[in-house]
Amino acid sequence: MRMYDIITKKRNGEELTKEEIRFFVEGYTKGEIPDYQVSAFMMAIYFQKMNMTETSELTMAMVDSGETIDLSKIKGIKVDKHSTGGVGDTTTLIVGPMVAAAGVPVAKMSGRGLGHTGGTIDKLESFPGFSVEMSIEEFMANVNDKKIAIAGQTANLAPADKKLYALRDVTGTVDNMSLIAGSIMSKKIASGADAIVLDIKTGSGAFMKDEDSAFELADEMVKIGTHVGRNTIGVITDMDQPLGFAVGNALEVMEAIETLKGHGPEDLTELCLTLGAHMLVLGEKATDYESARETLKEVIKSGKALQKLKELVESQGGDARFVDNPELFETPSIIKPVFAKEEGYIKAIKADDIGIAALVLGAGRETKESILDLSVGIMLHKKIGDFVKKGEAIATIYANDEGKKLQSEEKIIKAYTIVSESIEKKKLIKGIVTKDGITKF
Amino acid sequence: MRMYDIITKKRNGEELTKEEIRFFVEGYTKGEIPDYQVSAFMMAIYFQKMNMTETSELTMAMVDSGETIDLSKIKGIKVDKHSTGGVGDTTTLIVGPMVAAAGVPVAKMSGRGLGHTGGTIDKLESFPGFSVEMSIEEFMANVNDKKIAIAGQTANLAPADKKLYALRDVTGTVDNMSLIAGSIMSKKIASGADAIVLDIKTGSGAFMKDEDSAFELADEMVKIGTHVGRNTIGVITDMDQPLGFAVGNALEVMEAIETLKGHGPEDLTELCLTLGAHMLVLGEKATDYESARETLKEVIKSGKALQKLKELVESQGGDARFVDNPELFETPSIIKPVFAKEEGYIKAIKADDIGIAALVLGAGRETKESILDLSVGIMLHKKIGDFVKKGEAIATIYANDEGKKLQSEEKIIKAYTIVSESIEKKKLIKGIVTKDGITKF
Repeated sequence: MRMYDIITKKRNGEELTKEEIRFFVEGYTKGEIPDYQVSAFMMAIYFQKMNMTETSELTMAMVDSGETIDLSKIKGIKVDKHSTGGVGDTTTLIVGPMVAAAGVPVAKMSGRGLGHTGGTIDKLESFPGFSVEMSIEEFMANVNDKKIAIAGQTANLAPADKKLYALRDVTGTVDNMSLIAGSIMSKKIASGADAIVLDIKTGSGAFMKDEDSAFELADEMVKIGTHVGRNTIGVITDMDQPLGFAVGNALEVMEAIETLKGHGPEDLTELCLTLGAHMLVLGEKATDYESARETLKEVIKSGKALQKLKELVESQGGDARFVDNPELFETPSIIKPVFAKEEGYIKAIKADDIGIAALVLGAGRETKESILDLSVGIMLHKKIGDFVKKGEAIATIYANDEGKKLQSEEKIIKAYTIVSESIEKKKLIKGIVTKDGITKF
Repeated sequence: MRMYDIITKKRNGEELTKEEIRFFVEGYTKGEIPDYQVSAFMMAIYFQKMNMTETSELTMAMVDSGETIDLSKIKGIKVDKHSTGGVGDTTTLIVGPMVAAAGVPVAKMSGRGLGHTGGTIDKLESFPGFSVEMSIEEFMANVNDKKIAIAGQTANLAPADKKLYALRDVTGTVDNMSLIAGSIMSKKIASGADAIVLDIKTGSGAFMKDEDSAFELADEMVKIGTHVGRNTIGVITDMDQPLGFAVGNALEVMEAIETLKGHGPEDLTELCLTLGAHMLVLGEKATDYESARETLKEVIKSGKALQKLKELVESQGGDARFVDNPELFETPSIIKPVFAKEEGYIKAIKADDIGIAALVLGAGRETKESILDLSVGIMLHKKIGDFVKKGEAIATIYANDEGKKLQSEEKIIKAYTIVSESIEKKKLIKGIVTKDGITKF
């Protein structure tokens, strides 16, 4: 078998066999197939696409290119959640404790990553002492005992995907649904999920700017999951403005605590109930979506969800007193409102620009080496559809540096579009994709 | 400017600017742009094509990537000829002396290359003592003096093309008309041609298997030439069977001598008259194609063309006595006929298989290091349309090794298709492409 023939076969629009796909993934992972052949191949895939069989084979070949985590010692169906990423997205910190409280085991491998704010692990480190360092045995014991544990991603999961993504990133071959879907799914499958709930964001702050592409990506991922025996559901949600009000690390943790108490922002609460309910159904802890939602509302109302967060923090060495006493979280030296320069209705809030405004403050990483300032960030006070008076606060900046605060402020003001005519609120949940098909709301 | 943006621009089907194309060619030649970005870019071009402006800019950027040969000290219009390659193609050895005898300066840079037989230089080395080693000054003086000189390609011509071709060859990105045309034209232009006559072969023994593609390639090259101020004509010719009868090095030289004497094979003679006549017109030594043909017939009849070959051989140190006494050429130890196994009409002769039958004997190079046996080869006795009796010789093998002879014989027999119904002769000249358009015959 020769890589050259595989390239030209795909270039000519033919379907690749399982053996050809495995030959490529294994050869590339081992360094036997050079980058320059693979980048030409990726561009051929960009134009000629892959069908579902090819995409599933690619996904599983990438899974098999490295270690896979065996979670079989954890009792019950392990349901993972994945978000394609947005601004102010604190869902893991809320959905995790919620569904764990409802009986679904949450065995979460999480990362730090680059972005506007830190990853789930960074956010949890706002609790002094919190640590994700543990052996796989301790991790599984924790999940069996507490129903929830969050570990750092130390295993060498899907190295083929890592290498391939780095190459695609510099050769203009990222934008292909099969490749994007296979990349995400290979990591989820390698980390041991039995079932997966996907939160596919769409809008200005999302990777998928338009709704049709988001549905297409969701469909692709659900089909891969189904094809390889992992029950998968995709929820398409709005990221045309930041989710909730908080953008930052400690700020988002405080918002998560409020939400678990039942006092969170409406959109964030709704999203967590939706994703969590699907997780309960896939985890067979509810017979249908509606009863699952009721169960989740109940664990919030009864305080069990909040209690679960405390257990998680405690069991991983963190100071759980912060959960009941958020005033203990470190606050930055500068806390200043941003005022509206005109009166009107909020028509748009560029989510990615708000993200950058938080990054500038030190809430996120620009490079792997960046050191986060967990205390800084932005609290939004106005969302799309809201009315604002001239001079009223649209947001509050939490900063430790006056210069950065000014930069951030400028970006926040620019991110807002204010108009005179009234504006309808955005629909948060745009649709759902299951193995039975696509439903748009 | 970033290579990434140039890749995605082309991927999205947009036209590249001159600056972008130059940035790419210069960066790649210097090794500043990596292979893996360029191979993805080539695949994007494969799918999105380049227009004539882009193709011409690419060609000239490749010309400018290395040395260019300044032939301005040679009096008159320097007309070069290029063939896309076939089997038994001895035209340079005939057309060169013919047009030189008619007054067009022939300043030929030639190579050795890989193939079924050697290149023009290898063939000329059948004359003992013949050498292509000379300075560029000697070369130009020779052309001014004798109207013809053939030098080895020592200059670093179009290195970008060389590097790019090697990459395309292993990444499935050779088959694009703009890239093929630009590759050929960049070398011709860099070697100092004022005008170019292209012989584009089509058929089983050619790179362009089908006629439409051959016309398309010719059109692309003529347009590049016109665009960059080089008068260019493309002639589309048949390569569905070997040209002439001889396939080998010394054998082709002897056939060339016979043709220059006026006793050559009909097809080879016709092709040389056609290509030569276009060269005379472009070189302004004839006012029209028909009178150019008459001039060429005249230089054959008068012996001037043959005399010119002698001058060429002599001036470059070769033994010109061989021209008048072809029996002096070394003959191999085995000269054996190949007999027809059945009676009938020749329907097809797979040209590439005949080429391989000659290569097997040692007439061509498989690798750069292969040592040629100039004496071996094949003389065909039957061409398409001819009638052959069972047991009649269809070819003669010239070999120095009994095992190789048997291998070659088997291939020759397989290359011939003999049928009972009579077969029409092939049309040799299929059409012509000039800046005014395409004419199919």
